[in-house]
Amino acid sequence: MYIKDTIAAISTPVGEGGIGIIRVSGDAAPQVATRLFRGTTDGGLQSHRFYYGELVEPGKGNVIDEVMLVLMRAPRSYTREDVLEIHCHGGSLVVQKVLDLVLMQGARLADPGEFTRRAFLNGRIDLIQAEAVIEVIRSKTETALALAQHQREGLLSQRIGLIKDEVVHALALLEAYIDFPEEDIPPADYDEIARRTESAASGIEALLAGFREGRVLREGVAVLLAGKPNVGKSSLLNTLLREKRAIVTAIPGTTRDIIEEVINIRGLPVRLLDTAGIRESVDLVEQEGVRRTLEKIPQADLVLFMVDVSRPFDSEDELLLDNLAGSRFILVKSKCDLPAVMELPSLLLDAPSVTISTLTGDGVDQLRQVVHDTFLRDGAVDSREYVAISHARQRDALVKGLEALDRFSRNLALAVTAEILAIDLRDALRAVGEVTGETTPDDILDLIFQRFCIGK
Amino acid sequence: MYIKDTIAAISTPVGEGGIGIIRVSGDAAPQVATRLFRGTTDGGLQSHRFYYGELVEPGKGNVIDEVMLVLMRAPRSYTREDVLEIHCHGGSLVVQKVLDLVLMQGARLADPGEFTRRAFLNGRIDLIQAEAVIEVIRSKTETALALAQHQREGLLSQRIGLIKDEVVHALALLEAYIDFPEEDIPPADYDEIARRTESAASGIEALLAGFREGRVLREGVAVLLAGKPNVGKSSLLNTLLREKRAIVTAIPGTTRDIIEEVINIRGLPVRLLDTAGIRESVDLVEQEGVRRTLEKIPQADLVLFMVDVSRPFDSEDELLLDNLAGSRFILVKSKCDLPAVMELPSLLLDAPSVTISTLTGDGVDQLRQVVHDTFLRDGAVDSREYVAISHARQRDALVKGLEALDRFSRNLALAVTAEILAIDLRDALRAVGEVTGETTPDDILDLIFQRFCIGK
Repeated sequence: MYIKDTIAAISTPVGEGGIGIIRVSGDAAPQVATRLFRGTTDGGLQSHRFYYGELVEPGKGNVIDEVMLVLMRAPRSYTREDVLEIHCHGGSLVVQKVLDLVLMQGARLADPGEFTRRAFLNGRIDLIQAEAVIEVIRSKTETALALAQHQREGLLSQRIGLIKDEVVHALALLEAYIDFPEEDIPPADYDEIARRTESAASGIEALLAGFREGRVLREGVAVLLAGKPNVGKSSLLNTLLREKRAIVTAIPGTTRDIIEEVINIRGLPVRLLDTAGIRESVDLVEQEGVRRTLEKIPQADLVLFMVDVSRPFDSEDELLLDNLAGSRFILVKSKCDLPAVMELPSLLLDAPSVTISTLTGDGVDQLRQVVHDTFLRDGAVDSREYVAISHARQRDALVKGLEALDRFSRNLALAVTAEILAIDLRDALRAVGEVTGETTPDDILDLIFQRFCIGK
Repeated sequence: MYIKDTIAAISTPVGEGGIGIIRVSGDAAPQVATRLFRGTTDGGLQSHRFYYGELVEPGKGNVIDEVMLVLMRAPRSYTREDVLEIHCHGGSLVVQKVLDLVLMQGARLADPGEFTRRAFLNGRIDLIQAEAVIEVIRSKTETALALAQHQREGLLSQRIGLIKDEVVHALALLEAYIDFPEEDIPPADYDEIARRTESAASGIEALLAGFREGRVLREGVAVLLAGKPNVGKSSLLNTLLREKRAIVTAIPGTTRDIIEEVINIRGLPVRLLDTAGIRESVDLVEQEGVRRTLEKIPQADLVLFMVDVSRPFDSEDELLLDNLAGSRFILVKSKCDLPAVMELPSLLLDAPSVTISTLTGDGVDQLRQVVHDTFLRDGAVDSREYVAISHARQRDALVKGLEALDRFSRNLALAVTAEILAIDLRDALRAVGEVTGETTPDDILDLIFQRFCIGK
């Protein structure tokens, strides 16, 4: 549902900065400018021209701020509607005041992602590109950013387009026979139909195969540092965090108790779930640390199960191991600089493991590599043409498409009527079209754009 | 010291948003655009034109982001130098990458406030206006914002200009007699000199009189809610915070233990220093709350000394009162809805007081008014012409100016030589010139612009 009213929002991040931007999109945008802006415009605002002046409260005449103003006339704008940007000083209050004034001129506060949604609805970008916009903003590593940019540029859309073309061609060939159910499809056409649908199916399969990687790049992985007290969790954490470049950000909105930091391991965004640190030393009950760790195991994509090889494997280690059933883990044998005493239980003998010393730094690089390789193939994502689907939504649509193509090829072998075969292909087309947004229902669009920030 | 190199910085607030801006100022700005931007420019970038395109890594050719680009040619720019703005998606990483690329093209990372400093050094704005820019950004209340905008627009500078003119005229008259020390200044000139310097002095006095108000509007005041446990501090705090519009912001970078919120009391920004709340109920040692309160008394501009009139005045109240010596406070008699039992010590009988009930809301509005009136005259700051000095720096310079004018008028009465009288007036001029930045030393400028955010 797309009501062509005029929307407005603050498009710069919240907080203090040099510049704040209020963005307006819709038919009333030029009029908002005319009512609020006082500056030299030489008779009317030219499109894509940057004007200096003041924002003035209508009626009262008091200056709200000095501003730069730019009007981008439809269709040469982000939304393909008339878009006005008011650039003022970047203080929370002044930006809010400008927005308030804009809203009083008849604009409505934009929903999250509504500017991008309009860009999509007006056909400037497809749904993959729209989704990629927010990924560009959210990216925490260069690799994730590169993937998002490739999607935004349309590289993934092109791949989807090729798949769709194959199905469209197959369908066109097939439809010629729909009115003649008694006739067999001639061998040449049969071959081409089969060839094209197989090509489409293998195109989808290739994209599905890259999904885990794409999702991992986009969302990152949660890695839990687990181990009884004093095995060296804090030291390892500090070692991993020490390289300043490695730290990406503390995730906002989460308490420091649960997630400590996002680090970047060779392009893999890793959220370190950690129970190490200050708390432990303050705790009177030693078991508390273990209990907290156990609670977090289900949240982790990978557990770094840390043991201290200079001490025997004891009941606390055992307790952790018992709780790792069903979780992917790497055994981290710490304190390898000390004489090894530990005898590993047979269950752990074949587990993937890395031997480290945070004292000497031995093994830490290897650990990074092993964590990386658990989730990403080396080098693959460095390519300039690298594309992958990265959203469950995209995957689900492609899975539906593949299922329809599978049904089709079974039915083709059974020589069912062209009419029924065509239904399968149309199902496939519709599913693939959901990825790019041609056939995406409104409620799905709502879900997608809710994830956006206001003002984008 | 002003080296005319090219500077660059992120000009939007830190964080995620729709748009991020990288600003570049200096001779190399056009060249940065040429090297990094790929888009349709129809042969060269026109000044003040908004171009759509992509930012591309030179040599590698990979797209960093889609961007809008605007070049503002000197002198029609913020700094009066060539200024380039690159508008990209507002993600932390992508904005940083764009900045990194700009810096690799020969720009230097700007110091805090360096763009505004260049605007000042290049004569676009004076120092009062430069200082006002950061106040516009930092303002937490409409009144503070209005004051800052009036300063930024130059209203305070005009007032300073009038003062300076008087001194300049007096000095010109006086200098005519410097070469004739034996001659007396004729009565007509003597009168005009006296009149003009007195006018300048009273202009300065008027500004100095408004300083406390200006500073209070700019910085806000710290108000401490003090009282023994269970007198109703939490309830009052909640009542004050309840009106959503009243809450301005939590001050970033401070722990919640020390400063709770900034509230807006009729345009007065009030930082509530508070010991009430969750902590108290958890504390096993009741005295702990009082101890924490005592520690904070010296930080407060005003203490709200809260007593529960339904209970006797006890040793804990006494302890607080003993520690209020030398502090400005208002006695807040709470729980006036209950039967009053308390007998106030004689020391408190004449103290300014407000009787409230947070249960019924009685007296809370009056409390707000009393807090407001402690710091601000009613209505004065609502005027569209309201200006005030708001920085200690500005006050100190004006005090120096006034001292020189006082010296002058004493010397004038003593009929000292025109030469000596001229020294006094030149001192006065220099002092007044420091306010607008004409005679401000570099190290003071350093201090002023250090307070700015990066990118402004």
